[in-house]
Amino acid sequence: MSGYPRQLEILIKELTKLPGVGEKSAQRLAFHILDKDEDQVDALAQSMVNAKRQLKHCSVCGNLTDSDPCAICSDPGRRKDQICVVETPRDLMAMERIREYKGTYHVLYGVISPMDGIGPEDINLKSLIKRLQGQDVEEVIIATNPTIQGEATAMYISKLLNPAGIKVSRIAHGIPVGSDLEFADEVTLLKSFEGRRTI
Amino acid sequence: MSGYPRQLEILIKELTKLPGVGEKSAQRLAFHILDKDEDQVDALAQSMVNAKRQLKHCSVCGNLTDSDPCAICSDPGRRKDQICVVETPRDLMAMERIREYKGTYHVLYGVISPMDGIGPEDINLKSLIKRLQGQDVEEVIIATNPTIQGEATAMYISKLLNPAGIKVSRIAHGIPVGSDLEFADEVTLLKSFEGRRTI
Repeated sequence: MSGYPRQLEILIKELTKLPGVGEKSAQRLAFHILDKDEDQVDALAQSMVNAKRQLKHCSVCGNLTDSDPCAICSDPGRRKDQICVVETPRDLMAMERIREYKGTYHVLYGVISPMDGIGPEDINLKSLIKRLQGQDVEEVIIATNPTIQGEATAMYISKLLNPAGIKVSRIAHGIPVGSDLEFADEVTLLKSFEGRRTI
Repeated sequence: MSGYPRQLEILIKELTKLPGVGEKSAQRLAFHILDKDEDQVDALAQSMVNAKRQLKHCSVCGNLTDSDPCAICSDPGRRKDQICVVETPRDLMAMERIREYKGTYHVLYGVISPMDGIGPEDINLKSLIKRLQGQDVEEVIIATNPTIQGEATAMYISKLLNPAGIKVSRIAHGIPVGSDLEFADEVTLLKSFEGRRTI
């Protein structure tokens, strides 16, 4: 019992369920919300309900979308024979921002992580296999994160697809542009060295 | 244009309006909200709307309440001749947690701050004066924060009320309990020295 009116207590409790929001932050957010106009609070609340109600996973690539198939999958200008595999819709958006890739995507919603009890069947992988059986795919580009789990997932997918004659590639890891060799960690520098190209 | 579906973009935009929530945090929160069940999202959204719709300021003390007068003002067990002046409802709750004070409150919703163009008429002070005219008050305890603005507000109120013969007191400032003299700043130590009591 915090002593606040019941409605405020409920609001604070709901806010603490958000990631990274503790009791103190929730109180701060709650009072901020109460300071807003009724219209603004309604807009915030409605945006949550609308996003949750109207956004679904694309039945082809798994990306979040309000139409099925999603805008990318249904775009005739995008190459259907290139599939870039990413962990999350946010990674997909990061790839889109480079404005270079003209293929399609597949969103895994996670990575294989035996330590956490997450196996290949727990991520959106089955639909990728099904997708590859149904259409001609030239290249699968794996853009999972350069973590142990991301690498393991990349290895798993490449071992799965190579026997079927599908080219599987991995995005390059190395020194970030604008960064300094001196401050790079050993693993990144090793990846950078291994991935060297003739110029 | 982030490239996300429209509903998601709206949600992210609404979330960035919250204090301390930037673009990246808003994206993280948005995806977290989409990961929840529909029921949970509804509960969160509804808690905001309900709190905003149903909570009002107490017509006596200004505290947030769902009934008017608020629970404290309408409690016959609380002394009406003691009024503790605080800056915000959160400060009021902090005072309540000590379980010692049995008087009533007055919430200013701010402090006098000429630098920010906030004068006595911009905070909830007029209603305090009106309240003091309407009832016998023995003591006004000023519990504004020990900041320059909080002190200035305390001084302003005491100068205003002293001629009317109302006792005005200020909560003590000094070394926090459990803290170390060595690490106290000079101003706190000075306040602590000035406020010394015979034991």
